[in-house]
Amino acid sequence: MKKIINDPNQVVQDMLKGVLAAFPNELKVIEGTTVIVRKDSPVPNKVGIISGGGSGHEPAHAGYVGKGMLDAAVAGEVFTSPTPDQVYEAIKAVDSGAGVLMVIKNYTGDVMNFEMAAELAIADGIHVEKVIVNDDVAVEDSSFPTGRRGIAGTVFVHKIVGAKAETGAELHEVKAIADKVVQNVRSMGMAISPCTVPAAGKPSFVLDETEMEIGMGIHGEPGIEKKGIATANEIAEELTGKILDDMVLQKGDEVAVMINGLGSTPEMELYIVNGKVHDILSNQGISVYRTYVGEFMTSLEMAGCSVTLLKLDSELKQLLDAESFTPAFRK
Amino acid sequence: MKKIINDPNQVVQDMLKGVLAAFPNELKVIEGTTVIVRKDSPVPNKVGIISGGGSGHEPAHAGYVGKGMLDAAVAGEVFTSPTPDQVYEAIKAVDSGAGVLMVIKNYTGDVMNFEMAAELAIADGIHVEKVIVNDDVAVEDSSFPTGRRGIAGTVFVHKIVGAKAETGAELHEVKAIADKVVQNVRSMGMAISPCTVPAAGKPSFVLDETEMEIGMGIHGEPGIEKKGIATANEIAEELTGKILDDMVLQKGDEVAVMINGLGSTPEMELYIVNGKVHDILSNQGISVYRTYVGEFMTSLEMAGCSVTLLKLDSELKQLLDAESFTPAFRK
Repeated sequence: MKKIINDPNQVVQDMLKGVLAAFPNELKVIEGTTVIVRKDSPVPNKVGIISGGGSGHEPAHAGYVGKGMLDAAVAGEVFTSPTPDQVYEAIKAVDSGAGVLMVIKNYTGDVMNFEMAAELAIADGIHVEKVIVNDDVAVEDSSFPTGRRGIAGTVFVHKIVGAKAETGAELHEVKAIADKVVQNVRSMGMAISPCTVPAAGKPSFVLDETEMEIGMGIHGEPGIEKKGIATANEIAEELTGKILDDMVLQKGDEVAVMINGLGSTPEMELYIVNGKVHDILSNQGISVYRTYVGEFMTSLEMAGCSVTLLKLDSELKQLLDAESFTPAFRK
Repeated sequence: MKKIINDPNQVVQDMLKGVLAAFPNELKVIEGTTVIVRKDSPVPNKVGIISGGGSGHEPAHAGYVGKGMLDAAVAGEVFTSPTPDQVYEAIKAVDSGAGVLMVIKNYTGDVMNFEMAAELAIADGIHVEKVIVNDDVAVEDSSFPTGRRGIAGTVFVHKIVGAKAETGAELHEVKAIADKVVQNVRSMGMAISPCTVPAAGKPSFVLDETEMEIGMGIHGEPGIEKKGIATANEIAEELTGKILDDMVLQKGDEVAVMINGLGSTPEMELYIVNGKVHDILSNQGISVYRTYVGEFMTSLEMAGCSVTLLKLDSELKQLLDAESFTPAFRK
């Protein structure tokens, strides 16, 4: 295992120290926790938005803490759900009295621990709602969740829900927008090489020199099939095709596209995939309103990419375009 | 070689197609070239700023084309200087009559081809100036340049020079700021694994399972030494130490810090390095005004990082903080 780290068991703490050093005026860490919070939190009269999960998916989620997106991100150990007490601290830190929405990726541990935290907070009199993101169309009932996994589409939830909360909307309205995004977002990924969890010291799976895996999860969970590596165009067709099979999109509909790198795929390759995804959509008469190409939800140094489509209406377009200022997403 | 591409000899064209698909309202490609230009170019009464070089360093340079940074980026083949005729097209496309500044990384081919293009443009009556970025303190006289190489510090030149040009400054004033940035910026990098140029099909160098190379160039040029992989803290100390040996920094000085990933280093690791770099600077009484952590000047899928320090004064701080809106850098 080759990594630029100090101690495999201290990577999350060391990372958070570096995040805080980079953004001392914008972010803070709740003492004794791995919870990153907007420095001006709780923002008066604003619904608080929290997310989080295992670390190793940077910039998710600490990179999305800031104006117009998250109020707090809870960082678990690498690929490990954060504990309920950490999530509980995040909820308390961001509640201004307007309540808190939890954005949870659909993994059994995450859902369970966020829900346990919510129960503690509700017992304190805090209003808490949740949305569970399950955008990955690759497989039903994967290794960790029941139902579909939550992957890169989660970033669109952060952006749009965060923008809605900034308008002063009430908790039930923010929750309604969150549900709307989840209903309209679909993703699928593929990988050509694995990643190594620092504390494990060896790759989570093996692909041979000519293989790729289609539908792989962001923790290396099995996908649909392993097969010989295809061209970028074929990969774009396979991922986009599976997504379009699952979405109700008509000619004239508008979408946002995200081409997400999993950690070690050059941006050059992501843009090559993007070109083909746009061709496919254009051929079906679907308009692309905004495109995002880069690393948004990674898997340490895994090589591969995912495609995400979000079906838009005028309300979602306006919120997608609203101002945001976070370490990893600025609009 | 595992890559998400279509044809190893078409990667630059395929990439530019994907870039244009993502930013159809902001960017254009000059027909028959690999030159990416601001769609509103030439901007009236503004000095035009161009840069470029071999591809494979994305988001450099097309990712920095837009308001507040570059007017055009010339994309050569992977790790290959763009031809003079392409650079000449870029100069003509961005000249509003106010002249053009070329930002060139110090590689022999780049310098020669940009200078040949400038001669053609000057013969047309266009005012052209240049700045050669040579921020890499690792080695003198590397494989390709005479003198030091230009690496990630080039992004600070783009940002600050672009901001100065937006103020309506004249060409000689923009050139003076460019020279000031170059005089005050220093970088150094290291790698733990190589990258493969698509058309070559095999890695540009070899490191064994426990080795790293200190002072490696962004095309895999040899560094100072190969040795056993060290901790993130030791790496931060070695890179920052070498930079500080080369800069005149006093207690109380302010700097901007860039921790740049070379392509496949997880953001987690970059932030771990950042934490230590901040400690080192803090211990010397040097203040960090702004920090940038991410992938700014990559080497395809090379694993490793570079550290860049830019010494600031009030003028540079103001320009660093000026508005910019490009695919890869928004402020």
